This record gives sequence, structure tokens and C-alpha cells, in this order.
Amino acid sequence: MSTPESAAESFLVVPCAWHDEVVAAVYRARGYDADESAAAATNAAEATWHGIRTHHAIKALHIEAVHRGGGGGPVPGAKVRRLPGRFEASQVWDAGRKLGQPVAFEAMETCLELAARYGIGQVSVDHAFHYLWGGGYVLRAAQRGFIGYTHCTAALAEVVPYGGRTPTLGTNPHSWAFPTQAAVGFPVLVDWATSVTAMGRIDQCRREGRPLPAGAAVDREGRPTTDPDAAVALLPFGAHKGYGLGLINELVAAFIGGSRPTLRNRSPVPGEKHTTTFYFQAVHPDAISGGAFAGGRSQLENIRAVLADIRAHGNERCRLPGELEGEAAARSARNGGLLFTAAEVAELNLLAAEAQLAPLVADALPRAR
Amino acid sequence: MSTPESAAESFLVVPCAWHDEVVAAVYRARGYDADESAAAATNAAEATWHGIRTHHAIKALHIEAVHRGGGGGPVPGAKVRRLPGRFEASQVWDAGRKLGQPVAFEAMETCLELAARYGIGQVSVDHAFHYLWGGGYVLRAAQRGFIGYTHCTAALAEVVPYGGRTPTLGTNPHSWAFPTQAAVGFPVLVDWATSVTAMGRIDQCRREGRPLPAGAAVDREGRPTTDPDAAVALLPFGAHKGYGLGLINELVAAFIGGSRPTLRNRSPVPGEKHTTTFYFQAVHPDAISGGAFAGGRSQLENIRAVLADIRAHGNERCRLPGELEGEAAARSARNGGLLFTAAEVAELNLLAAEAQLAPLVADALPRAR
Repeated sequence: MSTPESAAESFLVVPCAWHDEVVAAVYRARGYDADESAAAATNAAEATWHGIRTHHAIKALHIEAVHRGGGGGPVPGAKVRRLPGRFEASQVWDAGRKLGQPVAFEAMETCLELAARYGIGQVSVDHAFHYLWGGGYVLRAAQRGFIGYTHCTAALAEVVPYGGRTPTLGTNPHSWAFPTQAAVGFPVLVDWATSVTAMGRIDQCRREGRPLPAGAAVDREGRPTTDPDAAVALLPFGAHKGYGLGLINELVAAFIGGSRPTLRNRSPVPGEKHTTTFYFQAVHPDAISGGAFAGGRSQLENIRAVLADIRAHGNERCRLPGELEGEAAARSARNGGLLFTAAEVAELNLLAAEAQLAPLVADALPRAR
Repeated sequence: MSTPESAAESFLVVPCAWHDEVVAAVYRARGYDADESAAAATNAAEATWHGIRTHHAIKALHIEAVHRGGGGGPVPGAKVRRLPGRFEASQVWDAGRKLGQPVAFEAMETCLELAARYGIGQVSVDHAFHYLWGGGYVLRAAQRGFIGYTHCTAALAEVVPYGGRTPTLGTNPHSWAFPTQAAVGFPVLVDWATSVTAMGRIDQCRREGRPLPAGAAVDREGRPTTDPDAAVALLPFGAHKGYGLGLINELVAAFIGGSRPTLRNRSPVPGEKHTTTFYFQAVHPDAISGGAFAGGRSQLENIRAVLADIRAHGNERCRLPGELEGEAAARSARNGGLLFTAAEVAELNLLAAEAQLAPLVADALPRAR
């Protein structure tokens, strides 16, 4: 799901306040209320801050525009209904196709409240619409000291099941974050789609006349191909193992209330559902601690010792998942703003025009160090 | 973790009662009490019943013998201590290095009790010893109508972190099972190690003079190799994605009480811990259900519809995870016993001799249909 920026790219520094004002204003202009718009701007800002260029404001507003009015598309101002239930550490919400970002922020917050009391808590969301960067929600859990987890069904079925030829699964991402910031300087963040690559990557290779990575896509007959013109669907990563992981999202969705993956966000079919689902979970670290750490270490010291052992013995150059995002966040902080390419700034200026706000003058923006 | 049998192999049918009696008797002869021995025999029988040849009785008793008396090894008759805690849906146990199978059966049972009340429940286990076939514990949860999940740290650090050269991670398996038996005839079971292959596979290729699968192992310098003589460590599946999944087990272990992975089950180091950890979780399907299934379907009918959609549209030959295990179980039932190769029956007879029980006469056993 996340592909942190390459340090070699050249970036301009966009003021956070300008970004958030413009992004929220566009959402408001499209009919969303102030809270929804602010939440969407916050998730986009946090993605950019952490170097995630695949799920930032431009993508978020593009997805909103593509799916609005369609089967499964977002409904401005929709109210979340918390369904009655008999299970104390669990909640199920009907999001009514509300914009995913405000739903996800609130659902993860509720998971933390449940986990604080029960040690673990879960919130499932039916009738959902795309929450963009899942890593942002679990990072918040980690920053508050909890282990956070979320997965969802992706908007479209683009992935072929292992051994198949037709895409019937979403790119179905999983995101986990761990409160390791005091141990290693950043939360460990395991956050990715269950496909080898995204459909956007195939489009990009087609535009640029470059071959696809091996094992990423199949042609119409289900044969692996590196030809972007022949590629029609994505492959799961890790053969049957990644297929199993992507299937988990579809199965949990089926338990929650999601329907046939091939109909998701497609043209309306009478009597059918076209919406995605979300699943959130949080765990309190004290609720899984036996307290008996080697050498009289605290839990925090133990985590530091374990992670140090994994990256010792000749593995000193190995990255931890989340380390690139942590470095990107440090770079954003150092530059005092959000890093965008010049092409992206031009797109942000189109959004500013949509919201009738003043554009940025790219030449006047500082270059990121 | 699981590698179901090939239907092409030739198997003899071993009576379940003989298997369970012999396996339990060997454990008792090695000092384990009746309950421990029966639980170990049950997990081994369930693995064999489902076609899992990597974690059956011969492997279980071999692992017991290899690790007994070593750092982290099992302690016959150890008592599980349920630690006090303030979190209602969570328990932490100190297993005192008790044999893993009885601990795992009881921990999953406790998760089901917690999930029945709270919708979700978790049990973490410190000072653990190898529970063998993780799929068996989550299958039991699924058979009782729950979603089951477990992961653990593997006995030894055999896997190189992504980009590294030295093995500092276990093969760290994950196992999920879903109560889909009424929908598709068997529980969906996603159950595998986070390495491409097992160390035993490398040993097997070395013995047979065959090359390794590509991308499965590295040499002393951390370079990928298919030469079984040069291979010294395993690679995670799916590059950084599988690495992240294997790291999750180490991190959860670090929160529970596990220590440096490179010391696990190695020669004792003063002041250090050498034990594995287990993590179990169960979810009640009603606790994640929004109840609004398309076309007025029930939750069960919805699951059937979603799984049918995934395997339609030209994907009719795709397998679901757990399908091979389900077919193996049906074949075991059809044959009225446990299927072993002639070579395995010879090894079982050695175990019978260890327990001073009568051997099987291989020639007199029925051949599996």
C-alpha cells in the first residue's frame, strides 16, 4: 500500500496550512461537511508527511470524483450508525457510504477505548467508502501506545486468485503498527497491498513504454506477462500465501456485509451491494505482557533488544518496516512542510482553483533539503 | 507451515487408535503426563488426517527429543500459570515450558470463551514450547463457529531479514481459519510459514542432489542461491512483505516476553531467555456482522456467494486455502484411518518399540484409496 518517496527525487516544500485549507475546501465545495473535509485533509497530509505518494490528496480527491454517484460511491454528510450488539469489546458500524477518512479516524479511536478496557477491541464497518492511507490510522494507534491493525476491501476487483485468470479480488491491503517509537525512533509499520504492485503502476509502465516487474500481472488468459499492453489484471504477492492474505479481507467483508467482489464499485445491480468494508483492531501492550523480560529488562527495553538482535550480525543495513516512513516524516519536519514534486504542485493548484483559493507560486517555494 | 500431501503418493492406512496409543505412550515414556501425551497425539493425528506431513507425530517426537534439556526445551508435567491482569477480554499465561500442544488447545478454548462474551478474545503465552501444527488449533475454532487465529515464534532463527545476510528471524508461521464449512464444505484455512520454504526442504535437496527453488535461500554472504550446499539460511516469502509478516511474530513475542531471536532454543546464556511465545485470538462472527446482506441473504449465504464469485468467471479451477486439507480429511475419513507412507510406518514402528508396544505389519495394512 505504501511506497515511501525516493530520497533522490526533487521536492518543493508546501506549507501544511495551505495544503489542509485547499484540500478541505475542495471537499466542502463537493458537498462534504466541515468535519469530513478536515479528516480527509488530515489523512492526506499525514500520508504526504510520511512520504506516501500513492494515497495523498491528489489521489484522494481523484477517487472521490471517480466513484461519486456510482454503485458504492460516497455520500456527503452521511451519518454513521452504531449498530446494537451484545459483545462488549466489539462494535459494528453502518457508515452509510460516508467518506472513509472520518469514519476510520473515529473507528480506530473507539478501538483504543475498547482495548484500554478489554485489552483488545474491534470495530467493523459496513457500507464503507475508501479510507485512503490505512497506515495513517494504525500509526495513530501506535503513537498513542497501542498496537493498531486495519484491513479493508479495495474499491475494485483487480487481482487474480492464485491459479486463476480473471480478477475477482481487490488489492486488499493490511496495515499493522507497533508502539516502538521509544525503542527505535519510529513506529514499526507493516503496510501494503496484497498484490505485487498497483494497477496505477501498470498504467505508468504503459505510458512510459517500460516492461512490468516479473510476476506482477497476467494477460487475458491468466498467463504472467511483463508487457504492459497485454496485462489486464494483477497477481497477488507471494503466490498462494499473498492470495490467502487477500482472501482474508474478502472473507471478513463477507461476514460484515460486503457482497460479491466483482460488483464492488461497479454499475449498480438491483438488490446487490457495491460498498467496501473496513475492519479495525487495537491491542493494549500490557494486555499481552507476561512481565518476565530477560535480564530484568522493561517491555520497552526488551523490544529494543529484540529489534537490535534482528539487525545485528551482519544485518546492520537492513531496514525495519516503517523506517522509510519515519525518515520521510523527519525530513518533512526538517523542512517544515509537505514535500511535493513540481508536477504535483501544479495538480494541487488545479484543486485550489476548484475551491477558488489562491494558487502556490512554484518558483517561490523552497526546495526540500 | 502446511504442505498437504500429493494425491499421487502411495499411502498405507494406519488405524487411528493404534496411532494415538503409540504416540501418547512415547510421550508418557519420556515423562509427560496423560493429558499432555493425549493432546500431543491428538494434534499429530489431526495434522495427518488433514494431509499435513511436515508436522505429524514423527516430527513432533523428533522435535521433543532434539530440544529436551536444552535452552528453551520442554519440561514434562509443567503447570500453566494464568497471570493476573486487568483486561477482561485478554489473558496472559506462563506456560513454564510445558509441551505446546496441550497449552495451545486450552488457550484456543479460552479464546472461544472470551470471544463468545466480548466478540473477540486473546491469549498470549510466554515460556512456551513448540505447538507443532498451528492449523489444528484454528481449525478447531472454525469447527466451533469462530474465526481463529494464531501465530508463534519458531524454535530457531533460520530466516534472513529482507536485505540481510544472517538469519535472525524464525520461520514464524501464521494460521487463520474461518467457519466456512457450511458454505463450501470445509473451513478456509490460511496457514503457512513466513519463509519461502522450510530448512528441512534444503536438507532434502542436499540429500537428493537437487537444486533449491529460486528465491528460497541465501549463501553465507546473503546472496540468493539455488545450490543446497551453499545455502545457509532461508529467505522470507514475498520480499519485504513476508519479512514484515515474520517480524510481526518477533515483535508480538517481544511484547509478551520473548527475547533475542538468535538465542532462541540455543545453548543457555546466563540471564537470557530461550523460549518461544504463542499468540491466540478468536472472533465471534456475530460480533462483526452488520446484518445487511445483499439480496436478503443470511451471513452464511453471503459467504457462499462471495466465495463463489471469487472462483467464477474463468477461475473455476482455483483452490481455496484449506481445500487441500479438506480433501485430505475426506480421504482419511473414506479410508477410515491415518495415511502414512511405508517409510513413515517404519518410523512409527520405531516409536512403538520405544513405547514397548506391538508394531504394525506394513504388508497387512490396507492401501489408501
